[in-house]
Amino acid sequence: MSVTAAPGYAAAGVSAGIRPSGKPDVALVRALVPAVGSAMWTTNRVQAAPVTVSKRHLSLAEPQAVLINAGVANAATGRQGEEDAVASAVGLADALGLEPEQVLVLSTGVIGARLPLDKVLAGAQAAADELSAEGGDAAAGAILTTDSGPKVAVRQSGGFTVGGMAKGAGMIHPRLATMLVVITTDYPLAAGDAEEFLRPAVARSFNRISVDGDCSTNDAVILLANGASGVARDDDAFAAALDEVCGDLARQVVADGEGATVVLEIGVNGAASTAEAEAIARRIATSPLVKTAAFGHDPNWGRVLMAAGSAPFGDGFAQLDTDRLSVAFGGVAVFADGSPTGTVPELTGAVCRIDLELGLGDGSAGYLASDLTYDYVRINAEYTT
Amino acid sequence: MSVTAAPGYAAAGVSAGIRPSGKPDVALVRALVPAVGSAMWTTNRVQAAPVTVSKRHLSLAEPQAVLINAGVANAATGRQGEEDAVASAVGLADALGLEPEQVLVLSTGVIGARLPLDKVLAGAQAAADELSAEGGDAAAGAILTTDSGPKVAVRQSGGFTVGGMAKGAGMIHPRLATMLVVITTDYPLAAGDAEEFLRPAVARSFNRISVDGDCSTNDAVILLANGASGVARDDDAFAAALDEVCGDLARQVVADGEGATVVLEIGVNGAASTAEAEAIARRIATSPLVKTAAFGHDPNWGRVLMAAGSAPFGDGFAQLDTDRLSVAFGGVAVFADGSPTGTVPELTGAVCRIDLELGLGDGSAGYLASDLTYDYVRINAEYTT
Repeated sequence: MSVTAAPGYAAAGVSAGIRPSGKPDVALVRALVPAVGSAMWTTNRVQAAPVTVSKRHLSLAEPQAVLINAGVANAATGRQGEEDAVASAVGLADALGLEPEQVLVLSTGVIGARLPLDKVLAGAQAAADELSAEGGDAAAGAILTTDSGPKVAVRQSGGFTVGGMAKGAGMIHPRLATMLVVITTDYPLAAGDAEEFLRPAVARSFNRISVDGDCSTNDAVILLANGASGVARDDDAFAAALDEVCGDLARQVVADGEGATVVLEIGVNGAASTAEAEAIARRIATSPLVKTAAFGHDPNWGRVLMAAGSAPFGDGFAQLDTDRLSVAFGGVAVFADGSPTGTVPELTGAVCRIDLELGLGDGSAGYLASDLTYDYVRINAEYTT
Repeated sequence: MSVTAAPGYAAAGVSAGIRPSGKPDVALVRALVPAVGSAMWTTNRVQAAPVTVSKRHLSLAEPQAVLINAGVANAATGRQGEEDAVASAVGLADALGLEPEQVLVLSTGVIGARLPLDKVLAGAQAAADELSAEGGDAAAGAILTTDSGPKVAVRQSGGFTVGGMAKGAGMIHPRLATMLVVITTDYPLAAGDAEEFLRPAVARSFNRISVDGDCSTNDAVILLANGASGVARDDDAFAAALDEVCGDLARQVVADGEGATVVLEIGVNGAASTAEAEAIARRIATSPLVKTAAFGHDPNWGRVLMAAGSAPFGDGFAQLDTDRLSVAFGGVAVFADGSPTGTVPELTGAVCRIDLELGLGDGSAGYLASDLTYDYVRINAEYTT
């Protein structure tokens, strides 16, 4: 049910002919009762036109609808790209009786190509006509590019529902990029509240995954909250449910990473600070040597230590003390307090759990990553512009 | 001739049985007239014992000899590792009539294994016995692990010589790591001067190459200067010659990168600052998507823009303006002032030149990288501990 799991939302997914394959390529999510919302955007300094336009809209009004197209990213398209993004928001706003500023637009697909505006506008109208409280799955299917399948997650808790959909498999097919996530809830939030919940949830989930360390020009995570549940606020319960939905979707993105055969679950404990733990976990998660070792089912603690030590140094970090370092693969200690244990666990299956203990303090962080495989190279090298 | 190209140095390379293959594995470089020296070390926070010990020695005395063993990295070996590193320096100092602090020790090979001290000491004695002014090539051959061949470079200028040897091909064979470089010159430097020349030369060469973005626990670049040329100082000429030797060796390391088929030459111009240009060049050089595109001979400017935009942001950086960005492959513009040119150059050969113009200021930087290939994955995944 994804984005229509919570009451008070309708969604649709249609084929507008933007993707050459003819697969569904325009998705629409609409709040049926007034919602408040927030969004987290790519930190890439090259930002796509829909990101620029949606940021502006979000600063002017609470979002009531999200229009997403697959096939063309509308990135590196200059002023024309912005005009096209605005025009698509205006077109959808007309169809729904909204102000343009109440519409967020997202795009994913080829970089550098102009948005086929006629197709997008026709798709927006068709999606508006098909809006339905059962449309969540159709929407989740219409935002995909080379994903192997839709990614949805739903949690219910204390009388309210949080549901979401995601697309993304790293920078995916050559020149097709982007992770897009839309999450809806009937939990009651006041205007301005949404960001306070979304930011930490994203920090703990989508900002702690890595397929290839590359960051798209179009990434976006959007949260809409319309209060339709009518429950009294229990912010801890909502934060927990939002965390679970984000975590679930983030894991699905990693598992569907380009050429991925193994999900690396990386846990760093005993760091001097959370920031240090996260920097070290990220470095391990993006190390080609750790990722190829995971592909080879090799409990290679030397590479884990190498990667940990090469994490960028920052405020609140400490010098690593080799004698306090321990590494476990799949819960089995392979390096303890500075010395190899001599144990070599056999790694099998689709999950490779790596735990690193630094022995310095209380900082901890987790990270999910995909392995680096022949298929990753094939997918990204064989395509030629 | 490598490290014995300049007068006043002797070197040797011998087989001490540390490498199971029986190949030469102990190298020695000796200044025959008193030298001053400096070294640059790995920034990895997990540092190998020989790095710790050599740093201490360098703080106490000018280095007159460098002992290098291949086969065992003496990394992640705790207090025992330090004692072994000290013992090998003491052994060589005895053989040469030096103080232990005048000896620098370097190791490369398997992480986590104890140094076979008896073999290293016997090798040090044998190398001391074989020291010769013609021994540079033997030394360059005895520091290799899985390198495809020795890496040497020599420049002569204004009556003095700069010669060097290097080993390294990224983190190379699984659990065998490290880039090691020794450079000798007969140019006259006063005590304390060497670092002032070595630091910028390394910053422009070895710190601007990437095979896989991973940083070894043992990396070291050492410069010895003994003044045997007797020439008057011309520091600009020396800096230029040192730059050339470092650049030449750095390029050899990249070209010999694991599984490499293409050397990427990345040039970033028009950045707001040198630091920004370097951060962007480094990000492009370490992007798996750019590196797989190079392997596939794909002039994929979208990935270059994506990578450029995702470089970490720092002081003195500016926001990127897509309309001012231009990208060229092999000197052919593919994206100019924010728009695709429509030209698709055919990429062939072993060099892929990528130029990015930001249009923001005067900052520029170059970077060398190897491509990401099936063989990289094979080399690093097939080995199992």
